[in-house]
Amino acid sequence: MDDDDAAAIGRLIAKDEIIDLIHRYSYCVDHKLYDELVELFTEDCVVDYGPRYLTLRSRADLRRIFGNPEGGFAATSHHNANVLVTFEGPDHASVRTSVYAWHQRSDGATRSLWGYYHDAFVRLPDGWRIAERQLRTLGADGWNVEMHPAREGDTP
Amino acid sequence: MDDDDAAAIGRLIAKDEIIDLIHRYSYCVDHKLYDELVELFTEDCVVDYGPRYLTLRSRADLRRIFGNPEGGFAATSHHNANVLVTFEGPDHASVRTSVYAWHQRSDGATRSLWGYYHDAFVRLPDGWRIAERQLRTLGADGWNVEMHPAREGDTP
Amino acid sequence: MDDDDAAAIGRLIAKDEIIDLIHRYSYCVDHKLYDELVELFTEDCVVDYGPRYLTLRSRADLRRIFGNPEGGFAATSHHNANVLVTFEGPDHASVRTSVYAWHQRSDGATRSLWGYYHDAFVRLPDGWRIAERQLRTLGADGWNVEMHPAREGDTP
Repeated sequence: MDDDDAAAIGRLIAKDEIIDLIHRYSYCVDHKLYDELVELFTEDCVVDYGPRYLTLRSRADLRRIFGNPEGGFAATSHHNANVLVTFEGPDHASVRTSVYAWHQRSDGATRSLWGYYHDAFVRLPDGWRIAERQLRTLGADGWNVEMHPAREGDTP
Repeated sequence: MDDDDAAAIGRLIAKDEIIDLIHRYSYCVDHKLYDELVELFTEDCVVDYGPRYLTLRSRADLRRIFGNPEGGFAATSHHNANVLVTFEGPDHASVRTSVYAWHQRSDGATRSLWGYYHDAFVRLPDGWRIAERQLRTLGADGWNVEMHPAREGDTP
Repeated sequence: MDDDDAAAIGRLIAKDEIIDLIHRYSYCVDHKLYDELVELFTEDCVVDYGPRYLTLRSRADLRRIFGNPEGGFAATSHHNANVLVTFEGPDHASVRTSVYAWHQRSDGATRSLWGYYHDAFVRLPDGWRIAERQLRTLGADGWNVEMHPAREGDTP
């Protein structure tokens, strides 16, 4: 195995871990596994779901907004496709993931959105974590809250 | 290449085969390739699409419910994202996959559902197969049949 | 590492590049990165989005139909799942990818479609490219244009 192959394999392994985290996030949200959810992030993560929330600046902030009955939905289903990973160095990656999210309130009304997560991942001694996440939406149905728009020319 | 790398590569190869099967299932359903479809499963597979069907206990049972004009839809489109593979041993894996399924009846009416497949995979001498599959839904639109609910706390 | 493992790793690396291109296509469409978009294709690519367009036979043809204000949508969101790659040789692959595409016109009206891309990929000296793409739809909502239907028995 030459050096190029070894490097390619290393990238595949790292990418696989990153993609797993992306999927695990959605699984945890949809199954209300909020304690597990926040462990996918760094302690000082910066998470921005849009202007309706203040920017979250820690796992504790993130934990607080999940499981809050006020803002809660009865059911959600997050579908992540199109995961694009760009390594910025051996321990940093910039990730873009499309999300189609279906939500249902307890009164049965549904809300959907279509957009992308813009993430920064870092590799800590015990594995990859999400250090930054921003949701940018292409469209939404039934939601009357302001969201960050996906912008023409947003780089992958 | 050290032992850890070799093990990681082995897992990547196995995972790739498993993910292919997940995708092939949807492709076969959507294109009505039912003979190919059942070959993705073990002969004694246990498949549970919900209380409206008896639990299916073999490839033959599974083949019977597909292609049945009574229950058939004119068109379906199954979108699998978020495939999470947990190896339980060298030849066993537990798999969770989100599914967004769009169905159209011959009268044009549509039905959608959002949920997860909970699968057990086994590796046979000629490759991986689905040994068990249960559909658990987070929500459904237009369907008036009972389904297994995805449960809070369902482990990935 | 034996020859089988080396071959399997080579396929994983190639497949990873192919899947990246599939995802990059959607990202570029959704973010109106049309110059980057056409670089994912061979110069003499053959692209067929359905009878409403003439079959496109070059990057230049493809570039022309994107960014045309007449046919444009205010926003689109393309979700690719179920990517199935079949290698036809070391430098050729046949690829099937499910697509759920949500579109919004500038008047707010939305259009969705569900289907599959049927692609032929080739490996050029500087990497994989899409040589042929045909969209085949399983269903569409709000679109009054003729499309290529996904056919029962379409091979994966």
